[in-house]
Amino acid sequence: MNAATLTISSRNYSSWSLRGWLICRMAGLDFSTEVLSGDDSTSRAELLHLSPSFLVPRLRHGDIVVWDTLAITAYLNETFPEAQLLPQGRSERAHCHSISGEMHSGFVNLRSALPMNLKAFHPGFRLFNGAKADIERIVTIFDDCLDRYEGPFLFGQTPCLADAMFAPVCTRFRTYDVKLPPGATAYRDTILHWPLMVEWAEAAANEPEEIEELDMEF
Amino acid sequence: MNAATLTISSRNYSSWSLRGWLICRMAGLDFSTEVLSGDDSTSRAELLHLSPSFLVPRLRHGDIVVWDTLAITAYLNETFPEAQLLPQGRSERAHCHSISGEMHSGFVNLRSALPMNLKAFHPGFRLFNGAKADIERIVTIFDDCLDRYEGPFLFGQTPCLADAMFAPVCTRFRTYDVKLPPGATAYRDTILHWPLMVEWAEAAANEPEEIEELDMEF
Repeated sequence: MNAATLTISSRNYSSWSLRGWLICRMAGLDFSTEVLSGDDSTSRAELLHLSPSFLVPRLRHGDIVVWDTLAITAYLNETFPEAQLLPQGRSERAHCHSISGEMHSGFVNLRSALPMNLKAFHPGFRLFNGAKADIERIVTIFDDCLDRYEGPFLFGQTPCLADAMFAPVCTRFRTYDVKLPPGATAYRDTILHWPLMVEWAEAAANEPEEIEELDMEF
Repeated sequence: MNAATLTISSRNYSSWSLRGWLICRMAGLDFSTEVLSGDDSTSRAELLHLSPSFLVPRLRHGDIVVWDTLAITAYLNETFPEAQLLPQGRSERAHCHSISGEMHSGFVNLRSALPMNLKAFHPGFRLFNGAKADIERIVTIFDDCLDRYEGPFLFGQTPCLADAMFAPVCTRFRTYDVKLPPGATAYRDTILHWPLMVEWAEAAANEPEEIEELDMEF
């Protein structure tokens, strides 16, 4: 009887909303999704003040309120351990947390230069050097995981937290026509064809235009 | 027989190094500390490429390697549950993870405008508006915690992950002479007088000058 609601912003633009939604679905949580829109009485200025009621993604589950993707993951992993949001081996779990943490707080150049925009395609997009260094590091992360755990997901046969964390990056690689080596290309395509990603992208394509970019990038 | 080493960069400038070290000490881990210096054969350019061997803080514990503050916390919380790095109540733990996640990926304006510098003091420092909004949100986080859990630490009588996450901010409030309301002032002073913080600050004061700012802010 735990009514659950996930609050998100734009499906097309908000990479954090995508990550939070993937985690909730992977956990098997029964939840409804509430979409904040730029049309609400809320001004963008208020949103940028990060009033806690607008931090997205935000999950209400019974009397628990939790925001931030990693916090939602920790909470759902406690609540639904059978969903295996994290790898089961101690070393693999530490590795998964490490690269998820890198994505959570880093890659600032990539995020600002290549914002998520699922509907867009920019063939031949020119990358500046800061974004290139971020992409190189991400390719190294992918190659290392695929080499150690043999794919098709980062930690093996089934998706986990790390795949949700890097899923928006895979959409950026497509949107901005980023050339990748073969391993990273295969992984990007695994993510883009992941049924949950297809479902999200279809919902994003049907999203009303007035839902503006409200991605707090937090 | 698990030899443990924590790799950090400058004690004076690296807020992430401070957080990782606090967590390791709070966990009761027996570890040695290795300090990367700008004098090593490593160039700053290499560091900025974020070669994984230089991501700090980085913990090696037996055959486990884990980097990123939140990942280190998750690992040590599994390994040393008796250290109670996280609050014991489910709701409090979700709250702790939420605000720790906010600090981990957010407050970009505060971090860039008011870099950690334990040795410095800038009376009357002029804050720009972006940093002010971040400070307002942090004060709200502090007030909410102190109100709900009654201090002196964010989640009550003993320090937890959230206090380690916000400890560098407390040093910035002192360094940049930031005016705070009474509750936040008391909390800042609790952190600045926390014996682990005093120990770190003394080590920072004695740090050779050639250890330059290597804070990756990740």
